[in-house]
Amino acid sequence: MQHAMSMFRSIPQLAKMLNNLSAWLDKAVADGEARGYDPAVLLNSRLAPNQYPLTRQIQAACDAAKFAAARASGKQPPAHPDTETTLDELRTRLRSVVEYLGTFKPEDFEGAEDNTVVLPFLPGKGIKAHEYLTAMAVPNFYFHCVTAYAILRHNGVDVGKRDYIGSLELFDLEAAN
Amino acid sequence: MQHAMSMFRSIPQLAKMLNNLSAWLDKAVADGEARGYDPAVLLNSRLAPNQYPLTRQIQAACDAAKFAAARASGKQPPAHPDTETTLDELRTRLRSVVEYLGTFKPEDFEGAEDNTVVLPFLPGKGIKAHEYLTAMAVPNFYFHCVTAYAILRHNGVDVGKRDYIGSLELFDLEAAN
Repeated sequence: MQHAMSMFRSIPQLAKMLNNLSAWLDKAVADGEARGYDPAVLLNSRLAPNQYPLTRQIQAACDAAKFAAARASGKQPPAHPDTETTLDELRTRLRSVVEYLGTFKPEDFEGAEDNTVVLPFLPGKGIKAHEYLTAMAVPNFYFHCVTAYAILRHNGVDVGKRDYIGSLELFDLEAAN
Repeated sequence: MQHAMSMFRSIPQLAKMLNNLSAWLDKAVADGEARGYDPAVLLNSRLAPNQYPLTRQIQAACDAAKFAAARASGKQPPAHPDTETTLDELRTRLRSVVEYLGTFKPEDFEGAEDNTVVLPFLPGKGIKAHEYLTAMAVPNFYFHCVTAYAILRHNGVDVGKRDYIGSLELFDLEAAN
């Protein structure tokens, strides 16, 4: 059960980051109001002409989180057809994936550690669930979160490291002694 | 020991990402040769005027990895004074941290799961080692890796998702049956 708990712990962290991402979008809206632009223009902003714009980065972060939880525990995730074109629709997508992640429990990962994960883009190949989570799903998830953050930051939105990391479970050192 | 193995598994992944980062720098050098510019100009490139340039992102990625391993296992990491000013010096720094990470073994994390980690920038507060690793050290590490990648990509260096993810432990599905 220890391995199950260790794998499970990634899942609320993915959900927290998606909630953080939603809060970065709130800051983008506030920046648009403060500087007099329509924040929707950020949705098609990108860091390089051959890299995805903000909308697709957010969709990809959502998918990375959804597939991380589903594949590592051997479940079938809900479909999301990538039809979002507004900030509100992206927030709804983020909420939908956060809710899906909230349905997972530590016991969903019981014995999943060495399960074989099969990926549609790697035909004929398998990867163990723990390797999939640590070396592919989590790095890919952070890739799209940080790129979304970077697109906002590059355009002057006032996001910082605290917005990125979000809340932490801290405790008072004296109380612990 | 299962928890120890689960915590330990993050460490070779951090080392792999630092090696990936070093390979992105090789691509930056190749891009400079192909397009006729000194790749050293990338070291001071940044995505926003109030965000760190490439050199500092790489130093921060190195520190995030070093502190993740050291603090989560209750060790004292080696000091790195952030004096690098060239690509070669940054590569040396990356190698140094990869070597340090290579000294860790699963047993270094035995019973470390619920240890109290104390952070210099959070006086009077503690955080459990597993929460520190999952919710702070790993996201912070990827933050600086992806931002370094984004600075290169934004400047036209030909890095892609495969360069980012790097090698994976895949196996042949038929051979596994």
